[in-house]
Parts: sequence; structure tokens; C-alpha cells
Amino acid sequence: MARLVMKFGGTSVANIERIRNVAQHVKREVDAGHEVAVVVSAMSGKTNELVAWCADASKLYDKREYDAVVASGEQVTSGLLAIALQEIGIDARSWQGWQIPIRTSDAHGSARIESIGDERLGEGFARKEVAVIAGFQGIHEATGRLTTLGRGGSDTSAVAIAAAIKADRCDIYTDVDGVYTTDPRIVPKARRLDRVAFEEMLEMASLGAKVLQVRSVEVAMVHKVKTFVRSSFDDPADPRPGTLICDEEDIVEQQVVTGIAFSRDEAQLTLRRVSDKPGVAAAIFVPLAEANINVDMIIQVVSDDAKSTDITFTVPQADFERARAMLEGMHGDIGYTTLQGATDVVKISAIGIGMRSHAGVAARAFKALADKGINIRAITTSEIKFSVLIDAEYTELAVRTLHTLYGLDKA
Amino acid sequence: MARLVMKFGGTSVANIERIRNVAQHVKREVDAGHEVAVVVSAMSGKTNELVAWCADASKLYDKREYDAVVASGEQVTSGLLAIALQEIGIDARSWQGWQIPIRTSDAHGSARIESIGDERLGEGFARKEVAVIAGFQGIHEATGRLTTLGRGGSDTSAVAIAAAIKADRCDIYTDVDGVYTTDPRIVPKARRLDRVAFEEMLEMASLGAKVLQVRSVEVAMVHKVKTFVRSSFDDPADPRPGTLICDEEDIVEQQVVTGIAFSRDEAQLTLRRVSDKPGVAAAIFVPLAEANINVDMIIQVVSDDAKSTDITFTVPQADFERARAMLEGMHGDIGYTTLQGATDVVKISAIGIGMRSHAGVAARAFKALADKGINIRAITTSEIKFSVLIDAEYTELAVRTLHTLYGLDKA
Repeated sequence: MARLVMKFGGTSVANIERIRNVAQHVKREVDAGHEVAVVVSAMSGKTNELVAWCADASKLYDKREYDAVVASGEQVTSGLLAIALQEIGIDARSWQGWQIPIRTSDAHGSARIESIGDERLGEGFARKEVAVIAGFQGIHEATGRLTTLGRGGSDTSAVAIAAAIKADRCDIYTDVDGVYTTDPRIVPKARRLDRVAFEEMLEMASLGAKVLQVRSVEVAMVHKVKTFVRSSFDDPADPRPGTLICDEEDIVEQQVVTGIAFSRDEAQLTLRRVSDKPGVAAAIFVPLAEANINVDMIIQVVSDDAKSTDITFTVPQADFERARAMLEGMHGDIGYTTLQGATDVVKISAIGIGMRSHAGVAARAFKALADKGINIRAITTSEIKFSVLIDAEYTELAVRTLHTLYGLDKA
Repeated sequence: MARLVMKFGGTSVANIERIRNVAQHVKREVDAGHEVAVVVSAMSGKTNELVAWCADASKLYDKREYDAVVASGEQVTSGLLAIALQEIGIDARSWQGWQIPIRTSDAHGSARIESIGDERLGEGFARKEVAVIAGFQGIHEATGRLTTLGRGGSDTSAVAIAAAIKADRCDIYTDVDGVYTTDPRIVPKARRLDRVAFEEMLEMASLGAKVLQVRSVEVAMVHKVKTFVRSSFDDPADPRPGTLICDEEDIVEQQVVTGIAFSRDEAQLTLRRVSDKPGVAAAIFVPLAEANINVDMIIQVVSDDAKSTDITFTVPQADFERARAMLEGMHGDIGYTTLQGATDVVKISAIGIGMRSHAGVAARAFKALADKGINIRAITTSEIKFSVLIDAEYTELAVRTLHTLYGLDKA
């Protein structure tokens, strides 16, 4: 007997028919003698509808009320799945975040889980009862208010609950059958990975792969939660195992590059001929940070007049206009000649733990991209990944080029 | 300064535009210096959608899970109205039943309010904050589970909260502008009542008038909550007062009959030639009561053979088939000759506190109905009302006849 957490996303619980299918997946594990906690998202489309209502009621809506509104989506699914499980003879009950409780910070709209009560869930397991837990939501105990964890937060709920109840495994069921070397819609030769290291998955999620919320991978890594990504669309009687996210020691044949990720959510800003004096970078980036604008790639090069410097950096597309307006306001302080911006850019990243022990991995990419006539606007590297910023029109070509270059194509 | 509760039903909060309109009604009272608690229903149609999902997941769904699912509707509206109020500069926050808490019995699906915490709401009033309370829902504290109060339960939430916070007034906003002498869709000459006594309103609600949940009138009567029924579709800047539900002493000009109610939710069952021995009524009605079938009118008359008795009674239409099957099963014990049933029947009732001091009120109705050729299948009377069961096809004719007979027609 094992104890396990099964998480089902919005497309997996999109309607009653799909919820019945989820119940069959749960039944398989219960019949195998396991103790099961299920974490569910809202039915697909519901969260968007609720968010739209909040935005319609007020452009600057109170995030505490937003949380009360959107947390309702998971509440509905948890009750419906409990009913569907009972219908096929499985004892089950729903749990809202505040009932367990899942205690979070008060950062409404993107709260962090601080602790999870395991006592009531444990009593449920002792009664042989499946716990059906509303994902995405929690409670800030000091104020007694509902909180939510941000988009994709149910993944984090699942992994955090797995850690709290010391589950042997956390299965994240989604509409794909695992983690791929890259997006198969762009590269038909993309391969499903049997295993991927926590660190790699963290980079992939951060760099654009949408299969898991970044925070959920962090929690899985810290608490060593053996996490599978697998498909709820598989036959419940005979599903494929999916991709295991695990410690790198558990991966026998380590590739140099494991996957290629890309993010279209990038915008580039360039300040020309900034006076090259100490403190200028701080003058630019401290105000942006204080305005909660997340600056990613930064490049500083000497300007063509050899007396000043050009500074290029990227921000999320949603923050582009706000960042540009701030920079225009700082013109007097910073003293640049021109402010340039571009939103038709994309960030392509290659990720692999093997990079640690292999030199020149990124250099091969720069050459391969140049050979295809792709101009690189910016580069960032870290121990296990590198990213290049390029024109958006080259996205597919660049992803396919790197996917082939690092030997990731399916045989 | 007064303290007041304002309750808005499903059609009053059907979409964001309507919710903005509700915010204007609240603003009027806040601007007048009042402390305001608002109670909201789910957006119209939402509860039906949620109930249908539960029924789709399982015909015999767990009522505890049903409660978790359907309570979400009011949660959404409470958050959205809080946002809409903040948008027009009014400090407001949403409250779920479990946050206040509104403590109820564990009769899931039709729980009764047992007590309401007034402390947190009081703190909110001290902060000059409008409380936006999710109606219809509560918590059973021993199990920590969500409960709901049954259809129309938000009315009861509102009145019970008004009692708990010692409100000066409870305004029930709906899609009509008050309580009428009968349904204006059937009798265009129906008049809006300025005042109606608690006891009369209780009978009207019990006998088919849908303007208020029966339980809410009971609570208002017990706690002497001055309750108005009024329209949310009136101009928020200049609304009409609606109908006041109050003690009978506060009604100056008491009519003999105040209103005519009717209920189509009736079914008739007749057992012919039941052997006329002691205990036969108990043999029939005790099992029905144990099966939670609510028997209403009962008539027993000697059969045409003068040796046995005919028993006729009514049940809600939803219980008709179940009751008939039970009676068929009892055939051996009771020993009737024939079991007859009819669902095309309607119950017409006349209600008025004046009946207490006036004799012959019902007799006038029997004659008037007979004059129109309407056959009476059954009669029940009590101190302040009488009801007749007739063929459904005579509904409108009978209601109009009694409405005119008792002088209720508009001038």
C-alpha cells in the first residue's frame, strides 16, 4: 500500500463526463489498495469567466475579493468529483483549502503555501476515504480570508499536499502524456522524456514550458516529491506512466541538453548612449524592481561613439508599456539619446544538467543559428541552461534547429 | 443612523450590470448614514446549473457534497458585489457563511440556522465597512462542512442576520415591488399591499405565494424583524417603499381577507371503501410521514355502501408516484377497493387575520365557486385561512372569483 496524490487539471474535469473519467482513474488506485488524495482544478474556462467578471466589476479590483470569487471554481469541482466517486462505490469527501487547512501568506492572487494541516486528512485515510481537495486555494488564518495561489496553482497545491502527507508519489494528470523535449506542436519529432531532473524541470517551466507551474517544481525539489506528469486521457484501466521528475542521481543516461523551451511573452527595451558612469544601472533597474517589473536578460555594451553605453533588457510583454513609460520619465536622470522597444521577440532556451560538465554547448548553438541567418539580440546563460532572444518570426526555425543540433529528434 | 440588512435575489444580481445597480441601492443607504449588511443570492440560473451538475454526477447525490457545490454560487456574488461597491468608493468586504459564522444544523440541503456570530460583523461596522454576505449558506461546526438552507434560503439568511445584528429593518429586494393581493399575472386587478401581518404572510408563503421563503417569515415573526419586500428594479435614487411585513397591531385597517394564494404543486390520492375500523388512518399516514411525504388536506367520508369509508388526501406533486407506490404496497393491510389519483388539481386559498372575528367567510366562497360551476374536491380551514382543492383548469376563474368576492380588486 502506498499513499499518493493525484492532481487533475481543468481540461481533465471540463464536464461531468470528464469528471466520471477522472473517478475511474482514482478507482484504479483505490482498487490497488492505495490511500489517495485527489487535487482538482476548476472546470476549464470557469476561472477565466470568474476573472472576467471581477475585471468587469472594477478594473482595479480588490485581490482579496478576487480570491473569494475565483476560489469558487475549485470548490465546485471538488464536490462534483466526490459525488462521482461515491456513485461508483468509492467513499470520498471534498475538502476546501480552509477546511484542511492549507495555510498561506496574505499575498492575495499569488499567495504562498506556508503550512498544511495533515491531521484531518489523516483521519479521512483512516476511514478509507478518498480526500478530494480543491486546488489553487487556501486561507490566510490571521484574517480568515480565502486566498489563491496564482494561475496553475493547483499543481503547487498537489505537490505541497504530497509533501505534507508524506505521499509516496504525486501524479499530475494533464492533457499531455508527459514532459517533451520541446513543444510537439512545433517540432513533430519531439520525444517524451521518461525522466527529467527537478532542476531541469524548474528551468523548463520558468523558460516557457507550460506543463507545470514553476512554484510546484520548486516545492517538489525542496521536499523531494517523486512527481509524475501523465495523461488523464489515457485509458483509466491501462494508463502510461508519463514522465518522472526526480533527483538527477536517479537519471542514468544524462543528456547534455534535455529540452528546448521558448517563451513568446518577452519584450525588449534598449536605451542608446547612456552616460557610462557608476550607478546608472541601479538608477534604471531599482525603480523597475520597485514597480514589480521583472527584468530578465540584461546586456550592456559600449556605444558606437565609444564614450557611452547601450543597455538592452527584456521584460514580460504585459509590463512593456509600463516599463517604457517609466523609462521615458527617467530621461532626465539617466540621460540616454534614444529609447527603443520591440515586442515581436521570442526567447529560446536549451536546458540540460549535462551542460555543467560540457564546455562549448552554447557556442554550438550560436553558430547553428547564425548558419540559418538568425540574428541573436541577447544572450543569458547559467549553469544548466542558456537563452537567446531572437526575432519572433524565427521561433519555429530556431527551436527545430536546436532540437536537431542537440540530438533530441525522435528516431 | 439605523442599522439595516438589504437582501438581493438572483434576478437582482443576474450580471455585472445588475450588480452595479445593486451597489447604487446600497450607496443610497450608506450615504444616508446607515450601517448596512447586504445579503446576496447566486446570479440567476447559477444554482440551477450547479444542481443539474450534481444530479448528472449521481441521481442519489450526497447532500453534503451538493451543499459544497451549490454554496459556491453565493460566494461568487458576494465577492463581485464587494468589488462593485469599492469601485464606487464604498468600503466593503465579502463574508462567507463559515467566516461569520452562520451556524446551522447538519440537515444538508435544507439546514436550519442555529446561531449567528455578530462579533466580526460588528467589527466591520465599527470600521464603516459594508458587509456583503453570501446568503443561502452556513456551516455545521461539528463537522466543519458547508451547509445550505434550501431554495429561497437567502431570504432566511437575511432575516436571521437582521435579528442577530439587531437591525432596525430588513429590506428584501426582488423583481416585484411588494406583496400583492394575488398573482398580478392572473388577476390584473391585484393590488400591492402596503402592510401585511406576519401570520398572513406566513400562510401566503406556505400556500403558494413565491415572494418569500416560508422559513424567513417564521424567523421574522419570532424575532419581530420589520421586513420590507421591495423592488431592486426601482430607480436606486428614488425607490418605492414596498410592502411592510409587521405585527397585526401595526395594521390599522384590517381586511377580512388580505390575499388569495394558489399552489399548482398538488396531487390528490383517494382510497375507496377502506374498512372503517380504528387505526386505519394511522396505518396509512404514519408510513407516509416516515417516508418524508408531506400530507396536506385530508378528507374522510362514509362510502356509498354505507359500510366503509373513502379517504382523500393531497401530497406534493414530486411525491405523488412514491406515495401511490407505497399505498399499492399497503393494499393487504388497509383493504381498500380502488386507489385513485389526480395531478391536474390546484389548491386555492384565501388568507386574512380578519377571519378570526368574522363568521361565514369560507361559506361565501363555496357558494361563489358553485355559482361558477366549479366543483370542490377538498376543503381545509384554519383560524386565518381556508383552502379548496379544485380541478386545475378552473385555477384562473376561481382566483378571480374569490379576489372579487372579498373586495380585493383594484378600484
